[in-house]
Amino acid sequence: MPQILFLPEKKSCEAEAGLSLQDAAERAGVTLSFPCAGKGVCGKCVVKVENGSVEFSDNGKLSDSFKKQGFVLACRSKVREDAVILKSSLGDEQGQFADVLSHMSVNGDLFPSPDDIKPLISAVTFTAAPPVQGDGLGDRDRFLNAAREIFEDKPVELPLGVLRRLPDTLRERDGEVSVWHMEKYGAVRIVDVEPGGSDKNLGLAIDIGTTTVAIQLVDIYAARAIDTITLYNAQIDRGSDVISRISYAKNPERIEEMRSLVLSTINEGISELRARNGRISARSLRNAAISGNTTMTQMFLGINPNYIRLEPYTPAVMSVPLYTAGELGIEMNPCAYVWVAPNVGSYVGGDITAGLLCTDFASGTDDVCLFIDIGTNGEIVLGNDDFLMGCACSAGPAFEGGGIERGMRASAGAIESVVVDPAAGKCEYFVIGGGEPRGICGSGLISLLSRMFEAGIIDPRGKMDKSGKFESVQALRKNSRFYITERREGMTAVYVTENDIDNFIRAKAAIFSACLVMLKNVGLTFDDVAKFYIAGGFGRYIEIERAQTLGLLPPLDREKFIYIGNSSLTGSFMSLLSERHRRKKAELANRITYVDLSVEAGYMDEYVAAMFIPHTDAAMFQRRAVSNAVGD
Amino acid sequence: MPQILFLPEKKSCEAEAGLSLQDAAERAGVTLSFPCAGKGVCGKCVVKVENGSVEFSDNGKLSDSFKKQGFVLACRSKVREDAVILKSSLGDEQGQFADVLSHMSVNGDLFPSPDDIKPLISAVTFTAAPPVQGDGLGDRDRFLNAAREIFEDKPVELPLGVLRRLPDTLRERDGEVSVWHMEKYGAVRIVDVEPGGSDKNLGLAIDIGTTTVAIQLVDIYAARAIDTITLYNAQIDRGSDVISRISYAKNPERIEEMRSLVLSTINEGISELRARNGRISARSLRNAAISGNTTMTQMFLGINPNYIRLEPYTPAVMSVPLYTAGELGIEMNPCAYVWVAPNVGSYVGGDITAGLLCTDFASGTDDVCLFIDIGTNGEIVLGNDDFLMGCACSAGPAFEGGGIERGMRASAGAIESVVVDPAAGKCEYFVIGGGEPRGICGSGLISLLSRMFEAGIIDPRGKMDKSGKFESVQALRKNSRFYITERREGMTAVYVTENDIDNFIRAKAAIFSACLVMLKNVGLTFDDVAKFYIAGGFGRYIEIERAQTLGLLPPLDREKFIYIGNSSLTGSFMSLLSERHRRKKAELANRITYVDLSVEAGYMDEYVAAMFIPHTDAAMFQRRAVSNAVGD
Repeated sequence: MPQILFLPEKKSCEAEAGLSLQDAAERAGVTLSFPCAGKGVCGKCVVKVENGSVEFSDNGKLSDSFKKQGFVLACRSKVREDAVILKSSLGDEQGQFADVLSHMSVNGDLFPSPDDIKPLISAVTFTAAPPVQGDGLGDRDRFLNAAREIFEDKPVELPLGVLRRLPDTLRERDGEVSVWHMEKYGAVRIVDVEPGGSDKNLGLAIDIGTTTVAIQLVDIYAARAIDTITLYNAQIDRGSDVISRISYAKNPERIEEMRSLVLSTINEGISELRARNGRISARSLRNAAISGNTTMTQMFLGINPNYIRLEPYTPAVMSVPLYTAGELGIEMNPCAYVWVAPNVGSYVGGDITAGLLCTDFASGTDDVCLFIDIGTNGEIVLGNDDFLMGCACSAGPAFEGGGIERGMRASAGAIESVVVDPAAGKCEYFVIGGGEPRGICGSGLISLLSRMFEAGIIDPRGKMDKSGKFESVQALRKNSRFYITERREGMTAVYVTENDIDNFIRAKAAIFSACLVMLKNVGLTFDDVAKFYIAGGFGRYIEIERAQTLGLLPPLDREKFIYIGNSSLTGSFMSLLSERHRRKKAELANRITYVDLSVEAGYMDEYVAAMFIPHTDAAMFQRRAVSNAVGD
Repeated sequence: MPQILFLPEKKSCEAEAGLSLQDAAERAGVTLSFPCAGKGVCGKCVVKVENGSVEFSDNGKLSDSFKKQGFVLACRSKVREDAVILKSSLGDEQGQFADVLSHMSVNGDLFPSPDDIKPLISAVTFTAAPPVQGDGLGDRDRFLNAAREIFEDKPVELPLGVLRRLPDTLRERDGEVSVWHMEKYGAVRIVDVEPGGSDKNLGLAIDIGTTTVAIQLVDIYAARAIDTITLYNAQIDRGSDVISRISYAKNPERIEEMRSLVLSTINEGISELRARNGRISARSLRNAAISGNTTMTQMFLGINPNYIRLEPYTPAVMSVPLYTAGELGIEMNPCAYVWVAPNVGSYVGGDITAGLLCTDFASGTDDVCLFIDIGTNGEIVLGNDDFLMGCACSAGPAFEGGGIERGMRASAGAIESVVVDPAAGKCEYFVIGGGEPRGICGSGLISLLSRMFEAGIIDPRGKMDKSGKFESVQALRKNSRFYITERREGMTAVYVTENDIDNFIRAKAAIFSACLVMLKNVGLTFDDVAKFYIAGGFGRYIEIERAQTLGLLPPLDREKFIYIGNSSLTGSFMSLLSERHRRKKAELANRITYVDLSVEAGYMDEYVAAMFIPHTDAAMFQRRAVSNAVGD
């Protein structure tokens, strides 16, 4: 009977030919996700057949580039022979990557095809001549003579770090070396030289958010995320949003402090990823792609960010030159050059140009698309093939659990979804990773508050019913609480306060009103939007209908919304893999017109009008989507 | 009456028109040196007329390039009007630079002419456009747009350290900036950007010796050494010669230890130079040229030196790529690229290619020249326009005061010259800087031992007369002593021991026999040598006749010897100033054939034969030069 092995769990089962892969996974004790109930449309059950084969009844939803790489949809596959099945979102603790991967897997050429795979830094193997007494050649000359042949007489630059090891490296395998390199201005820049043949090409995709930093360890040639980690940005104590961070970084010492804080977060994440994936050496990490908003990018580079908020609001860098990890302070191969996503304007940065790679903005269609990245800064891009406009608004950290008393990131222990009993206001909830809840994440807040609103526990201004009708409400003179968990001894209670709700309302108002102003700017309405991309690292998914109830999202048809998770991280992942995507990102940065909301007439009025649930103008939210929220 | 001001002493005097500059200097209380007694041939009294003029009766000895820069010979100049006179060896504590400068000043185009002055890194001034809201340009773009015009559309690389300061720098003078840069592989590499017009161009010439490190602060456009400092190489405790240093550096930790030791010496010297010359900022030091032997160069670069002493004796680097001061760890402008002199072979390094710049080797003449650099490693180059051969021998640190009980570098407190009373063996001596002697330097040893030998105090094997005839001899069972100073209480006595003398004899034997073997190798004798260049940092001058008495130098006519002091340092000085000299150095490195003495038949025999004063073959030293030693 065929044997089916599932990775990374290393769980296997015997399965008769014809058994669905879904059933085989269950038999092996492996969890796969089937949100569309096996209809083969959502793409969430995409897996990779690493060895052997399965019977895949292709419905045309999976893009060719994915199929070529051995991906199939588990819901439409049956056991045929012995096979090794790799879960595509392998190691992605929050499933963010699975979301966008599944979206892209059903959307043509968004994902790099095998032909696209061309990282910034790659290896060639060649053999240098042996040392000869009295020939007047040093080790470097022997190396360069061999290199010049391979690199067609282009100038070759050998960094000091590599030169230091060269004498030993050349002698270890009689001159046979793998040479990691890239080209810049017509010269070949060597990044590393190893004895013998070349290793895997490992890289890091990094998203520097104002609140959260996400880092992904990537096997580049396999086009695979090995593992992902998210951490709070250690700058958080120096201000919760970009403006307060900029104000803090008012002198060179503080700029350096901010730089070293975010760097310590990145390096802590890398260290953890290396440790838990088989003690990977720092030196073997030879590619990295980073994205962040303009302020985060400048702070990471150690550049004075102050002029971003002073007239005429000029950032220091739009396109970011290639610097080495050593210069930047990232604990990977110090001679590796790091790709940093280009910025668009003072508040629309590389996170957005990276994120747009996960969409079909400006890919040959007249359809107007709207992209919102919901984070501490809410960024919005509107456009089609003819025009692209971008703006940003300050939402604050509520969606990432910041400024919420029991808020936390969407990681193990976070309540991510809540059902509220409309009678007594008692809650049932789902906790990421199971077990006791430690707090509530962004998606949990959306779920909770929309249901509290429907049950009448909070009014349109977010104030709680303190009549005693709902026993979960603890009425206080100031800042009353609503308990999600029970108040038992020895257990951390999870609750929301009126202040929390107020912070959430400000956040959603900022984003909604920014979208509205952008549309008005070009004479459009929400109805003109063909595709509404939602990005953000606030949870494993967003319940669209719930977000509409709260007035965070407009009342459009469910089908128009596409949730693409942490698209900044995914954009970095793709930039790591593919030169085509790096080029496309740079082109997008050039094409987007930056709109400054602070000088946009009407923005403040729209913002104030949106500070209600769902909105002061309730009529705008009369028409409601009827489809179920994804992920329920 | 005209006023004559002498710099750097800032001493002045009133002097009647027609008074000789020599007398004016005396009147002002300023010391100038006139070894040829004012005949206008030695060039040692060369000074620069900074302001005003003098009446210079030119005898054609001073080269045109010097005259164009305002140099005159003090011995042939008379007061005409108010003038400011700058001593050419300004700040050069040991006068080494004066020696070579005077040599070059009377030797045509060896010294860079004003047209030659082209440092690696220089500044241009231009103005970037002001920031404009919404034009999509960052500060970097504004800078690059202006730079591209100046640099004719070549790619421009802006290092991170400069980018970090760019936003403030561009705003300080409304976009006017001085841009320090160089070109590499067709791209312009920016080193620094300063607000407003450009400053002086300051540089560092550095000679890394096995025993002594010399560092010179240079005003490049003025072609002037501002100050020089010498320090013991902090690696000394890890072995006194290159072989023992290489043996010590047997693992990566120790290679790094050796690197950081020599770096600490260099940085200590730079720090002292900066402090005592008006608190110069590290950032304003934007050029550096370094020379050292192959082992010192590799250790400074942090490269495993072990293969230098293992068959087939291949160094890691011959020509050294340009690295930044930041990468190298030198405490100057971290983005400055540093020029390191190219090596010739495992034991003939960049100190020699630098040193040859101070000679007319291979400058269009058939005359056979011999160059010896007397240091811990003795290096020898022999050749003319047709051939160039180089070799090295291990002399040990005796010439620099190492391995000598009361030995010291040629700095304040060192006995540099001794006269011995042949009857009782009592000494008179000269101390550098005056005052009580603290020890004896290399030139002092040569002076002392030759006179001890002539007085019969030591025999040809270096053993002392212990008969009691000479009261300065303290006869001991082992290692008898000869006292140069009296043995008074409270005063450090300076003496030499038989072991000291033995070390000295080994050192001189190594160098003499190496010269002999090189000549024999090409079928020549000492008589065929037209010019005999002597380089080394062992004193302020070398008493040629004394060195001949000891058998360190062969008994050729005095006129054939040219003492050029620390030519490695001077070669670095010239490389700092002039592209022509940098190119010439690289060409010389390519042209020299490296001879490995250790595999040369007959070297050991010659070495043993030379372990006598003056030599086992005394007949070789019958013919003696009659002229007086220079410097007496």
